[in-house]
Order: sequence, then C-alpha cells, then structure tokens
Amino acid sequence: MEVKKGQICGQRISQRLEELAEISETKNGVTRLSFTKEFQRGQDLVKKWMSDAGMKVRVDNLNNIIGRYEGTKPSAPALMIGSHLDTVINGGKYDGMLGVIAGIEIVQVLYENDTRLDHPIEVIGFSDEEGVRFHSTFLGSKAVAGTFSPQTLELTDETGITLASALEELGLEPYQYKSAARPANDVLGYIELHIEQGPVLEKEGLPCGVVTGIAGASRFSFKVTGFAGHAGTVPLDLRRDALSGAAEIILAIEKLAKENAPIVATVGKLQVNPGASNVIPGEVTGTLDIRDTDAVRKSRVIDEILHAANTICQKRNLSFRVEKIMETDPTLCEAKIIAAIESSILSNGMRAVPLISGAGHDAMAMADLTKVGMIFVRCKEGISHNPAEFAAVKDIEMGAKVLLDTVIQLTVKNSNMEKEKVN
Amino acid sequence: MEVKKGQICGQRISQRLEELAEISETKNGVTRLSFTKEFQRGQDLVKKWMSDAGMKVRVDNLNNIIGRYEGTKPSAPALMIGSHLDTVINGGKYDGMLGVIAGIEIVQVLYENDTRLDHPIEVIGFSDEEGVRFHSTFLGSKAVAGTFSPQTLELTDETGITLASALEELGLEPYQYKSAARPANDVLGYIELHIEQGPVLEKEGLPCGVVTGIAGASRFSFKVTGFAGHAGTVPLDLRRDALSGAAEIILAIEKLAKENAPIVATVGKLQVNPGASNVIPGEVTGTLDIRDTDAVRKSRVIDEILHAANTICQKRNLSFRVEKIMETDPTLCEAKIIAAIESSILSNGMRAVPLISGAGHDAMAMADLTKVGMIFVRCKEGISHNPAEFAAVKDIEMGAKVLLDTVIQLTVKNSNMEKEKVN
Repeated sequence: MEVKKGQICGQRISQRLEELAEISETKNGVTRLSFTKEFQRGQDLVKKWMSDAGMKVRVDNLNNIIGRYEGTKPSAPALMIGSHLDTVINGGKYDGMLGVIAGIEIVQVLYENDTRLDHPIEVIGFSDEEGVRFHSTFLGSKAVAGTFSPQTLELTDETGITLASALEELGLEPYQYKSAARPANDVLGYIELHIEQGPVLEKEGLPCGVVTGIAGASRFSFKVTGFAGHAGTVPLDLRRDALSGAAEIILAIEKLAKENAPIVATVGKLQVNPGASNVIPGEVTGTLDIRDTDAVRKSRVIDEILHAANTICQKRNLSFRVEKIMETDPTLCEAKIIAAIESSILSNGMRAVPLISGAGHDAMAMADLTKVGMIFVRCKEGISHNPAEFAAVKDIEMGAKVLLDTVIQLTVKNSNMEKEKVN
Repeated sequence: MEVKKGQICGQRISQRLEELAEISETKNGVTRLSFTKEFQRGQDLVKKWMSDAGMKVRVDNLNNIIGRYEGTKPSAPALMIGSHLDTVINGGKYDGMLGVIAGIEIVQVLYENDTRLDHPIEVIGFSDEEGVRFHSTFLGSKAVAGTFSPQTLELTDETGITLASALEELGLEPYQYKSAARPANDVLGYIELHIEQGPVLEKEGLPCGVVTGIAGASRFSFKVTGFAGHAGTVPLDLRRDALSGAAEIILAIEKLAKENAPIVATVGKLQVNPGASNVIPGEVTGTLDIRDTDAVRKSRVIDEILHAANTICQKRNLSFRVEKIMETDPTLCEAKIIAAIESSILSNGMRAVPLISGAGHDAMAMADLTKVGMIFVRCKEGISHNPAEFAAVKDIEMGAKVLLDTVIQLTVKNSNMEKEKVN
C-alpha cells in the first residue's frame, strides 16, 4: 500500500475496515455486537487511529467513542462526522464502520497538512445502531441527541444481562446517560457517510451520491379471510379463495407504489392457511412495509392501498383486516448540507444523483439535535447485512474526498452554516 | 322415528350413520382408520344391518364387506352399490358411509316388499379408501377391481405395522388378495352414492344430482426465483420481487381456469423466502392442483398456465421452475347409468343437474372393472373431512329414492345394460 502523506487514501480506509472486520465473533461475516469483548477490541483500534490522526479521544457513558480535532476557534460549534461500530449477526465490513473510518481519514489528511478549520471536527463511532443485542436501535446516537429513554437501560439481551449492567461492566456510568447528550449550541451539524444498501448508484454507474432524506416507514400486518374448501369440488365461481384475493392486493400495492415513486412498498411475509396442495386457501396473513420521505404522500398512498384492498375483498366476498404495527417519521437532510455535498460531487467530476435512504441511520436520531446530511457510496448489488457486502476502494476514496470537500465548505469562515448558527 | 315398512326412510339411514359415527377413536369428529378395533366394530354393525336386510354377508381378504341380495336369475351379473367405511382423522359422518348405508336401505326396501330383481344386488363397504393409515388410497376397491398391487401389502403405518400383518391380525389372508378380485363378467355395474363435498347442489337448491365423471388431477410444485433485497432501499423498478411475480401467476391461473370451466385449478400452498417484513421476497415456492374430466382440455390449460407463468417471469426478470408431482386420469361415468339416474331424478320431481366430481372415489378404481355411475347428495356448505360435515335427512332420503329407482331401471329384464352385457 502506497499512502501519500496529506492525501485521502481509499486503500488505507479499506485496509482499516479489513482490520476491524477481523475482530468478529463469527467466521462467516462480521459479528460484533455492542459492548462485547470483540466490540471493545474494535473500539480500541478506532481509538488508536483517532489518536494517530491528531484527535483527542473520549468515550461517553453510552460507550460512544468521540475523537475531537480542534478548529481555529475553540468556542465554535463542532461539525460531527460519524456512524456506528456495531454490526448485525454475520454482517458486512462496511455498514457503519465506513462512516467512522472515512471521518478519521479526512481528519488525518487535515492533520498531516497541518490544517485547522474554523470549527472543531468531531468523529464519532456510535456504540449501538443495529439494536441486535438489546432489540432497540440507535442507542448511541439517541444518547448524544438527548432523546435516550432511561427505560432502555433495563432492556436485557438473550442471556438476561441488562443494558445498564453491560455498560457498567465496561466501567461506564449508564445512569449518567444525560452526560452523553450534547447541547445543540455545541454542534454545527452531523454528516454520515454510508454504503447505499441499495442498487441505484450501481445502476447509475456512480461511485457516490447525495442523500436528500431518510424515509419514514409504516408497517402493517393484514389478514385476508375467505373460506377453505376442497381443491377438486368447489367451482371457481363459488370460491372465496383468500390467496387469489391476496395476490390481487399484492399487485395493487405494487402498482400504487410504482405510480408514486420514489415511495417503496413491500409485502415481505405471507402465510397461507391451511396450506395444503388440495385445499383452497381460507386465510392469508401478511405484512406491508411502506417507506417515503414525504409523509403526506405516504399517508395518501396507504389510504389508496387500503381502499384498493377493501374493494378487492368486497368484490371477492372476502374479509380484510389490517393493523398498524410500526410508524416512524421521515428525516429530511438539511438543504445547505445537501448543496455542499452536491457541489463537492460536481467538483469531483461526477453527476450528483439525489438519493433517498430507505433504511434507518444514526442521522435519523441526530436530526433531533442538529442539521444532518448523508453521503452514500455505491455497494455491490445493493447487498448489505450480509458477508457479501462490498464497496470498491476507488468508490470509498471518492466518497471520502466528497466528505472532505463538504466539511471544508461547511466550516470555512462566514459559511452559510456558520452565519445561521451565529444569528 | 316412524319407519313405514317397505319404504325408503331417510331417518333410518341418518340414525344408522349416527350409530356408526359413535364408534370413533376421537371425540372431535369421526376417526375410524382401517383395520382398527373401531373399524371392526363399525363393520360388525354394518354386517348386522346387511343381514337384517336379507343379504348374505361375506368379508374378502382385503377386509371389504359384501352383502349379496340374490335376483331371480342367480347366474346374472350383480349390480354393485357401495362406498367406503373408513374415515380421515376427525372426519365426518357421511363421507363413504352414506353410500353403504343407502345401499343397505334400498335392499331392505326390496326385501320388505318381497321383491327380487332380475340381477343380484351387492352392497359393498370398502375397507380403505382414504389411505390415511397406510398412505395409499383405494386399497379395498382396487382389490375388488383386480388392480391391487402386492407391494402395497408391505406399506407400514406410523407404528411400523404392515398392511399385511394388520389384515392377518383380523384372521384374513392378505397374500390371497387375488381372491377379492371380481371377474368382469360377474358384475353388471357399480353405483356409488356420496355427499357432494362441494357447494354446487346447495347453490342450485337441489337435494341431489347426477355425476358425469370424476376429474383427473395434475399436481405441480413450482418455484419463482428473484432477488431478495432491503424493503427500504431498492426502488420498485429495480426489484425482482418473487412474490409479486407469484401473485401475477396466481391471478393468471385463476383467469384461465374460469375461462375453461368446469376445470378447477388451485394454488393451495405458498411459501415466501426469506419471509421477513423488511426484506423483498427472493423466492416463492408453491403448488398447483388442476382437475378436469376432460383430459385434453386439462392438458391444454396446463400448457396455457405454464406459458403465462413463463411470460410473467420473463417480463419481471424472474426465473420459473415447475415439476409435476402427480397425475391421475379422469373417469367417465357410463352414459346409460347417467341416463337412468337423470330419469330417476326427473321422476322424483327435481331438475337433473350434471355434476363433476373433483374428489376421488372408489368408483375411480371400480371403473377398471366395470361401468360406473355416481349420485351426489347436497352437503352443507360443501364441507367434508371435517366434524362439521352434514347432509339433511330429507336430502339423504331423496338420494336413496333416486338410487332405488336407478337400480330398478338398470336391472329390469331386457334393460339396455343387460342387453349389452349379454351380447
């Protein structure tokens, strides 16, 4: 590996991701659940890289790791760059980690060039975004954003250990969770670089893109009830086949989602009862997941889907029941951060394709504290949460360059961000 | 119960069905699997009723029970009437038993009226039609038809007992199975009265109907393969959603079956993988069951369905694989028996609605030996193989009257059936 001092090096980022990935509970993919021995060994590596890049490192009471690189004006609010360091079970090397390591990379470049920006830069590695161990997501970023709920501390993992005791085991003081919260005035904004986890950039032939918002999600369970019967003895026109009804509903959902792009809607689970080859299905249960950055459009499309489903079931003499099981609000990225990322992408010679994030990210939690922006890096076939998760070195390098340019734009004296913050 | 001597009595048939139903392994519905203690107790009851109706009773080596009521010409071929005495697990009181008890009823009426027909009448209670215990259907009727395969004797039930030893336990000689086969010349025809197990008669408001044929069945398993992905991050137009493809196929199957009535086609099983609410389905497997009395039409519709499925999958960039897992030929009922049943229905003041049997019956096996006919009796909501299986006393009575009139028509001197048999 040839690293030119004072320049973004995709190879270095990539190699650090490989080093981190070697610290895993499993051999198949990366498994580094929060607050485990492996997680702490990973954090130690990150701590060292932060120090080497000229940052002062601290760990807060929720086990987030924060490296701070002072600016020329020590009292100026910090621009935060980060993502998370935990993984799913048998996950990939990029989801989360890339945002932290890319943040360290750009600070290292500034440090090697002996450059200080007006604002401090803080690189943050959140402790638990995936929520695999305690079944609650964004634990780290919620603590920083000041939205952490103390009841969360009593959640247990599958061995019965509470979140509080897992943190105490590390010498932290979890009930002092408020000390992790940052005053809004201390923070200029939050930028997260992440693999896309979708196929759009690959399809467009682009290394990276600018995120305009993180979709809100609504999730429903539904049940179509008809009447089971003998597959041989009931003529088609006397059937009340719940599966045929569900099939028509699934196609109506697809049609309405296509007509209202970029909304996405998915029937991911479907169970057919009684489920025998010689019995007409009497009941079908399923799930509907629908996501959009435009809450008004999402609400309208949900109404249209439910209306279509009811009409289909009425026509077929079936009953339709639906229950909402989850709802999250969309997060819009800050226009000025979007503009800075766009101009950085353009000045690096690419088209700036606006993307929506359909997956959740720490930026969602951070949006409660400050203005947020996200850069997506192309990943192979859109695959993530999987050992096959992959982003190419040159795409990672391009993403980090865009991140650096964006950070410089946002932190130069008299930038729009700064003005607004002062006013 | 008032029974008028020498007249068909629905109440008596119904009461006998209730008595038989009380002999069950389970309290929820009727469970009388072949060759069990309960089965034999049921057979003993039937034996007594046959004797009381003036029949000479024997049991063959496959444990079929046969009651014979001689005609005026002892050497004339016998008209057989019957069905089966075994049940499914938690089944109903009518499926099978009704055909045997109705057969006994009409012989009893002839006997009480001191009437002999030209031909002997044989009422037969087949020992195993459902195939629940040894997973092989039509054991009894195949033995009588001469199509019984000796390998079947080695089949085992869930406790490891072979069919052969179950029969030996009853004092029978299973390896003498050929002795149960009837020479074709000994048999004039076979008539089976059965509950419809479908909703058509109920819909038409008729107590009974004439069956024109038993559908042949083709059964397939199929697999639609697309590409799994994150429900939030993959735009609709980049998806290869296996479930949306399967939904379109299911609707195409329904449409083609409706256009080709009375063919029936059913997707009864469907499994979605990976089957999580936030994952686009990557693979769907399912079954297709298609039945028709017209083998040519069935074959054409199958071709059309498979063509449609391939076209849908091609358009959606999915792959489609299909495998045939079962195929049975249709059985056509004999025109002269159909005509006799029709005229009996008309002379009892009803419309004669031709019905197709979508379920299998002993008549299918018996068709290899002789000409067959079937009468269906209305059953509530088409439900069978279920404790809720129900046929009304007056419908049962009407079915038995039609059966008696049909038997008389077919066995009078110089009937068309007889002429043909002699020539």
